Amino acid sequence: MGNRVKAIVSYDGTLFSGYQVQPEKRTVQGELEKALARIHKGDKWKVTGSGRTDTGVHSIGQTIHFDTTLSIPAERWPNALNSLLPEDIMVREVTYVDPDFHARYDTVGKEYVYQVNNSKKKNIFKRNYMYHYPYELSLSEMKRAAVLLMGTHDYSSFSSPRTSVVDKVRTIFHVGIEKKEDEWIFRYIGTGFLYQMVRILTGTLLEVGKGKIEADIIPSIIEGKDRDLAGPTIPGNGLYLTKVFYEKQKLQEELDKLQKSM
Amino acid sequence: MGNRVKAIVSYDGTLFSGYQVQPEKRTVQGELEKALARIHKGDKWKVTGSGRTDTGVHSIGQTIHFDTTLSIPAERWPNALNSLLPEDIMVREVTYVDPDFHARYDTVGKEYVYQVNNSKKKNIFKRNYMYHYPYELSLSEMKRAAVLLMGTHDYSSFSSPRTSVVDKVRTIFHVGIEKKEDEWIFRYIGTGFLYQMVRILTGTLLEVGKGKIEADIIPSIIEGKDRDLAGPTIPGNGLYLTKVFYEKQKLQEELDKLQKSM
Repeated sequence: MGNRVKAIVSYDGTLFSGYQVQPEKRTVQGELEKALARIHKGDKWKVTGSGRTDTGVHSIGQTIHFDTTLSIPAERWPNALNSLLPEDIMVREVTYVDPDFHARYDTVGKEYVYQVNNSKKKNIFKRNYMYHYPYELSLSEMKRAAVLLMGTHDYSSFSSPRTSVVDKVRTIFHVGIEKKEDEWIFRYIGTGFLYQMVRILTGTLLEVGKGKIEADIIPSIIEGKDRDLAGPTIPGNGLYLTKVFYEKQKLQEELDKLQKSM
Repeated sequence: MGNRVKAIVSYDGTLFSGYQVQPEKRTVQGELEKALARIHKGDKWKVTGSGRTDTGVHSIGQTIHFDTTLSIPAERWPNALNSLLPEDIMVREVTYVDPDFHARYDTVGKEYVYQVNNSKKKNIFKRNYMYHYPYELSLSEMKRAAVLLMGTHDYSSFSSPRTSVVDKVRTIFHVGIEKKEDEWIFRYIGTGFLYQMVRILTGTLLEVGKGKIEADIIPSIIEGKDRDLAGPTIPGNGLYLTKVFYEKQKLQEELDKLQKSM
């Protein structure tokens, strides 16, 4: 089969029906597989991603693997693929990896960022890249809630019931909230996230910030294991898959770095 | 006929075939007229803009007028229209004006901004909002050229030959260049601009910055009155119509303010 390639891929999710291939739909995986089929002069080429992202969700860190029969140097792969990809997907970095590396099964953690535009008026130029939430927010209340969201828990209350995943226990290592003028950035690092989990976590934090949910009841929301207890599922347009970790040491370094800056 | 309304309109030009109505095409004017027809419960409603903008060109300052038979208070007009407009157009500000006010004929000046992303790598999230130009730029050379571009001249060399406009004399009061990390902002204020003029002016300044055109030859480019002498017409995606002036005093105040900050 040749060599296994690992690649980090950015995409603007606006015009995609999510990451995962679906018949008749424009998907990120579909476009990647088309480009790889062309470069290999084949009919089909298989790409494996670290996981799916939903319609409208963006990436600067999605990680994939594929096998190749070509001997292109790693540093030339990005340009070779980008010249065949549409302008809303970009391969950022390529490395050759062990033939048993697996983009999905080998993950040890992921980072997602959710961006909120908190200005009074909408900004039409940001409509696809930030969620517009014009209400006054209490940073201190949201930070109090963020701490209570971390840990190892069954996150059933924070995931869409429309999923086949049975084990809903995950570990969230970090929930960070930064404010930059009227833009807010919510950062999550965990072992993995359930379907719509980051959108529900952020939807809940915003209701805490607005005063609609009290920070103190976060533990009882988690314990209730009931989707109806948490805040709303906010849109995918503010969500970015920013990093996928494959080495525990790298994950720990990232967490240490964030710890220091807090 | 009732009252004449003046409105300032933002739009994301990405998905429009420009400002001006064209059959079978999605245009800004077309969407505005549709919304006004609906609010007036009429078949058609006429909107007059300060001028057209091309495909992909954005606005935060386009100014229009229309006549209304409704007695909606000025401060309620934006929400009334925005609820009927698509999410890539937004009415920002509405005032009632004299019945002889004309959005096109009464202009005394316009401001355009052209945004350039000068980073080595493309940023897919900015692809519709900035022109990507990855070459090293000399700010001092571009500033030297900018001064030579100002004044009252026949700007034939800086306009597309595909125009029916005969008199190509315009006055440019201000050409400003600002740098913010790897983003460059080119700001132009003038009496008016010819077809594609701001895109050609910026295309020329970039070639000066890159060292391909010498700043000193700008006067001879102007004097030559030949489109082939100037730099390329760069894409519309980096261009924004930011202000339309109807009062000489307001225009002068803006120029004084920019003068002071230089």
